[in-house]
Amino acid sequence: MTLKATAMVFTQEGTPFVKEQVILNDIDSDEVLVRIVYTTICTSDLHTYTGRRSSPTPCVLGHEIIGEIITQGKKIKSDYNGLLLNTGDLVTWCVYAYDNKSEMAKKGIPQKSEGLYKYGHHKFNPDDGLNGGFATHCVLKKGTAIFKLPDFLSYRQAAPINCTHATIAGAMRMAGYLKNKNVMITGTGMLGLSACAMAKEGGARNVIAMDINKERLRFAKNFGVDRLIDSKLSVDEIKLLLPKGKIDVIIDTTGLPSVMETGLELLAIGGRAVWVGAVYGQPATKINAEMIVRNLITIKGLHNYTPNDLGFAIDFIAEHHLKYPFETLVGEEFSLEDLSIGFETANSGKYYRVGIKQ
Amino acid sequence: MTLKATAMVFTQEGTPFVKEQVILNDIDSDEVLVRIVYTTICTSDLHTYTGRRSSPTPCVLGHEIIGEIITQGKKIKSDYNGLLLNTGDLVTWCVYAYDNKSEMAKKGIPQKSEGLYKYGHHKFNPDDGLNGGFATHCVLKKGTAIFKLPDFLSYRQAAPINCTHATIAGAMRMAGYLKNKNVMITGTGMLGLSACAMAKEGGARNVIAMDINKERLRFAKNFGVDRLIDSKLSVDEIKLLLPKGKIDVIIDTTGLPSVMETGLELLAIGGRAVWVGAVYGQPATKINAEMIVRNLITIKGLHNYTPNDLGFAIDFIAEHHLKYPFETLVGEEFSLEDLSIGFETANSGKYYRVGIKQ
Repeated sequence: MTLKATAMVFTQEGTPFVKEQVILNDIDSDEVLVRIVYTTICTSDLHTYTGRRSSPTPCVLGHEIIGEIITQGKKIKSDYNGLLLNTGDLVTWCVYAYDNKSEMAKKGIPQKSEGLYKYGHHKFNPDDGLNGGFATHCVLKKGTAIFKLPDFLSYRQAAPINCTHATIAGAMRMAGYLKNKNVMITGTGMLGLSACAMAKEGGARNVIAMDINKERLRFAKNFGVDRLIDSKLSVDEIKLLLPKGKIDVIIDTTGLPSVMETGLELLAIGGRAVWVGAVYGQPATKINAEMIVRNLITIKGLHNYTPNDLGFAIDFIAEHHLKYPFETLVGEEFSLEDLSIGFETANSGKYYRVGIKQ
Repeated sequence: MTLKATAMVFTQEGTPFVKEQVILNDIDSDEVLVRIVYTTICTSDLHTYTGRRSSPTPCVLGHEIIGEIITQGKKIKSDYNGLLLNTGDLVTWCVYAYDNKSEMAKKGIPQKSEGLYKYGHHKFNPDDGLNGGFATHCVLKKGTAIFKLPDFLSYRQAAPINCTHATIAGAMRMAGYLKNKNVMITGTGMLGLSACAMAKEGGARNVIAMDINKERLRFAKNFGVDRLIDSKLSVDEIKLLLPKGKIDVIIDTTGLPSVMETGLELLAIGGRAVWVGAVYGQPATKINAEMIVRNLITIKGLHNYTPNDLGFAIDFIAEHHLKYPFETLVGEEFSLEDLSIGFETANSGKYYRVGIKQ
């Protein structure tokens, strides 16, 4: 059985996407064929589109994807949680397929396995099926952790789970026990808002958000933030605005050296900084090592996430989708045909996310 | 009952110690009076002596101390491990007394408790008893974790346990599981040698020592080191000398920014750096935050240690004192009267430690 699919192919920076018809062949016994229903444009898609990040070309971008199962290989019976999978099920999946026998997977870092297959980052090859979000279909390869989605979530709520929210779930795992702690989130983009809400529900005594963009900062109040800090302020000025006891945990989503440096200065003795934003080249971050030692500070970097983190993120959004307005973060939607306009709109920075309806 | 004691008092940098007679009054019910038998001169004592570290003056320096119990307050029945304490017992103790109800103690960082009382760092006040190692006696205050020492350890082996080895025990706790890992120790002073031996016994596949001093580096082979790296080499040159799989854990005892920066470059994905050496002012350590994030690197600072770390260090030295030549690290001994000569000798850098026999 063959199936006609459509993909919007990225060829080079700043160029409109090229529509391609693809004939999909039968899948293997450990693969799943999905009809994509919705994809959100992630900031890293924009980085590739604008040439700030290199990617193999041509390729089908897009990894914040959800879709319905069309066919499943006979070895695929259930999702990562053990729930039976059936045709028509709405699913999300890890942004990568990995070999669970690999050395890195055994170390608990499957996202860094040798030979990792990343959705939306892989060279386009029609003979190999489709592997990115800006298409009508996607072939889930062997080693992809698949999760059924609750049917009460909207597409806008569900699509960003497997990137933004799963990454923040990983950051929360690294941040540790948050109950009664003062938690600062630097950067209030999509990652930052997710972190604010997760820190609040994790029992933080105070969730403090810091950003240079006052509008975004104010909006963060909808995501469980107790205090807002303008990142233009000096360390001493910021200290005056902080709750007693300094900051126990900082989650940085900005990747900006100056913000990460400020964050370390604000940490209490025994404090912890989890960095997730620094995924692009930057000048060196300058650290006072004596302060790190004398204050027993921990710094942890996180890139991507594990399947368990994605499971946590799905449960989190399922439980709190009515409390926090994640729905509203997708500001505008476009059809797959209008992908190039969608990217231009996303690139304007007007919205946290732009959605593509297949 | 009163007792005549002698202290060698530090008054200001570069000045000989001043001999003072002190009348010790009765101790409180939660204190212990110890006759000091041996003290080693720690590098931080030298920092104070040479003016590189500030300390309240006048004071009695010295915190790597062991002594015999003369009298114990009636509330003090047993040591930290629950062993009964008696007059004549040889003991060591934490370099600080703390309140176990303090907020920092509850957080698991007793060494940063409010109102911490540090032996060998406290202003000399004859009415308050004696509190430093370069004296004939020391009053162990309420909240001091005391440990009985095995009688088969020599004074040279036992005295440095409560500073060097306990700090490294804390670093090992932060380093986590070392079995089959590649562990690099930067700096092969006393802290570094202790770290080499503990990493080896912790099951490290390879213990790699790095230092600029070739003589010290060669000597480290006696402490379980498998590979020696000259820290003058570039990162690329060092990589060629490393075992396959890069470095999983680095313990830095140098506190030098360039060495800590090199260390981070050598870490494998998921690697961990524990910094203990940076206890003095230095230029900024320049970090590539993108590398920290993409490689999921952890940096942890440690200053001082917990009572449990001291317990671990005592057990470690007790078990391995015949295997590793810790005994030889004390290169020369002086009487308390000759303390100033002892300090000059220690300051020459000829030995890892100089001992003072009371």
